[in-house]
Amino acid sequence: MKKYHIAIVGATGAVGAELLRVLERRSFPVASLRPIGSSRSAGKSIQFREQSIPVEALSDQSFDKIDIAFFSAGGEISRKFVPPARKAGAVVIDNSSVFRMDSDVPLVIPEINGQDVRQHSGLIANPNCTTAVALMAIYPLHRAFGIRRVFAASYQAVSGSGARAIAELKNQVEAAAQDRQSPAQVYPHPIAFNVLPHVDVFLEDGYTKEEMKMQNEGRKIMHLPGFCASVTCVRVPVYRAHSVAVSAEFEKKV
Amino acid sequence: MKKYHIAIVGATGAVGAELLRVLERRSFPVASLRPIGSSRSAGKSIQFREQSIPVEALSDQSFDKIDIAFFSAGGEISRKFVPPARKAGAVVIDNSSVFRMDSDVPLVIPEINGQDVRQHSGLIANPNCTTAVALMAIYPLHRAFGIRRVFAASYQAVSGSGARAIAELKNQVEAAAQDRQSPAQVYPHPIAFNVLPHVDVFLEDGYTKEEMKMQNEGRKIMHLPGFCASVTCVRVPVYRAHSVAVSAEFEKKV
Repeated sequence: MKKYHIAIVGATGAVGAELLRVLERRSFPVASLRPIGSSRSAGKSIQFREQSIPVEALSDQSFDKIDIAFFSAGGEISRKFVPPARKAGAVVIDNSSVFRMDSDVPLVIPEINGQDVRQHSGLIANPNCTTAVALMAIYPLHRAFGIRRVFAASYQAVSGSGARAIAELKNQVEAAAQDRQSPAQVYPHPIAFNVLPHVDVFLEDGYTKEEMKMQNEGRKIMHLPGFCASVTCVRVPVYRAHSVAVSAEFEKKV
Repeated sequence: MKKYHIAIVGATGAVGAELLRVLERRSFPVASLRPIGSSRSAGKSIQFREQSIPVEALSDQSFDKIDIAFFSAGGEISRKFVPPARKAGAVVIDNSSVFRMDSDVPLVIPEINGQDVRQHSGLIANPNCTTAVALMAIYPLHRAFGIRRVFAASYQAVSGSGARAIAELKNQVEAAAQDRQSPAQVYPHPIAFNVLPHVDVFLEDGYTKEEMKMQNEGRKIMHLPGFCASVTCVRVPVYRAHSVAVSAEFEKKV
């Protein structure tokens, strides 16, 4: 079986750690693994298949001889380093929102439009987390009854904002137990014992960018240009796992 | 100005404490105040207008010479003690769901159908908390555009389950900080760092009782027998204040 040289940009983050676990659990055919982080993380190491592998600092040269590069270090890093990674010959799987709506970039939920990956030209995008969760339930119903529009509300864990947000919730909760306050840094307000609609930035029409993703990405993933979604996204003080409440209107009687 | 003899059943609970504060803040014309609790609470005392008033144990005789009796001690207590309170001549304002849909009981949100209180025969019901929050936003839009149906999802604080639930969240969070576990008693699962759809009991169709209240109570409060609401109710680890996300469909173009 062919084995692949893998790079993970953001290997020390919350998603990077999960990626490593998935590669292990699925016995993915890894020839070599190159964990890549910020200069702050370089020198740390990560555990993979009982090996300790040092984290390298990200540079334009990070992708020499890499077959598959996973990016999960935020939009700015993807914007800057996905082009050199493609140029070096790697197939990039990007977790950021930067390239998702580009017409030559497949946006894929394997269970829904797995066949779209075949059209890639060196870059495959991974959808927004809330979109992925909701479409997994919506798509089979669409196949059976024809979806017209959905109304959704999310309950999003802090893990979606990365490892710093997980630490922020933990610090604020511990501070509250000692009648202290721990400042909000990742979020604009305290997240402990609170719910926040500030998931990504607010747009002019009052929706957040996050709230528009289910409609925009849903249209592309389901190949349904007329799909409509009215969504409220809310961050809740939960460490892991997103939940989404969905009401849907169908063409046929359910 | 006429002054009233007031009883508060559930005076030591979360809602009871809030009621006492509202009576103070609004300088309600109180001739006398009788705080009433379970036999467990009898002997404790509450503070009202800088007086300390002992809590009395609930009995059929609790309502002698009472003009207005507030009930906020759960459905079972209301079912048993609202009838004797009415019989004793008190006007009862009940926070439970027991009598809300009875045809001779006004169900009132003052800002929406305040005039309905005039039809009372000794009992006025207060709507479900999530319903009240959502209808306050929906009703003015209905007046302007004609409401057809709503899709809503709630983020409900533990305070809605009473003082014991507030303590349960606090205990579970403190336990987590010390790597201990504190058992779930009020809720069927831990509420700390979790979201729970178990708000009231599940009905046969998969909705909870709580989720049907917005439609049922909304029809009565807005005098709109055709009003439809598809609602998801979720308890979140927040101490106070409910939030509700609402999408709505109107008769006229908004």
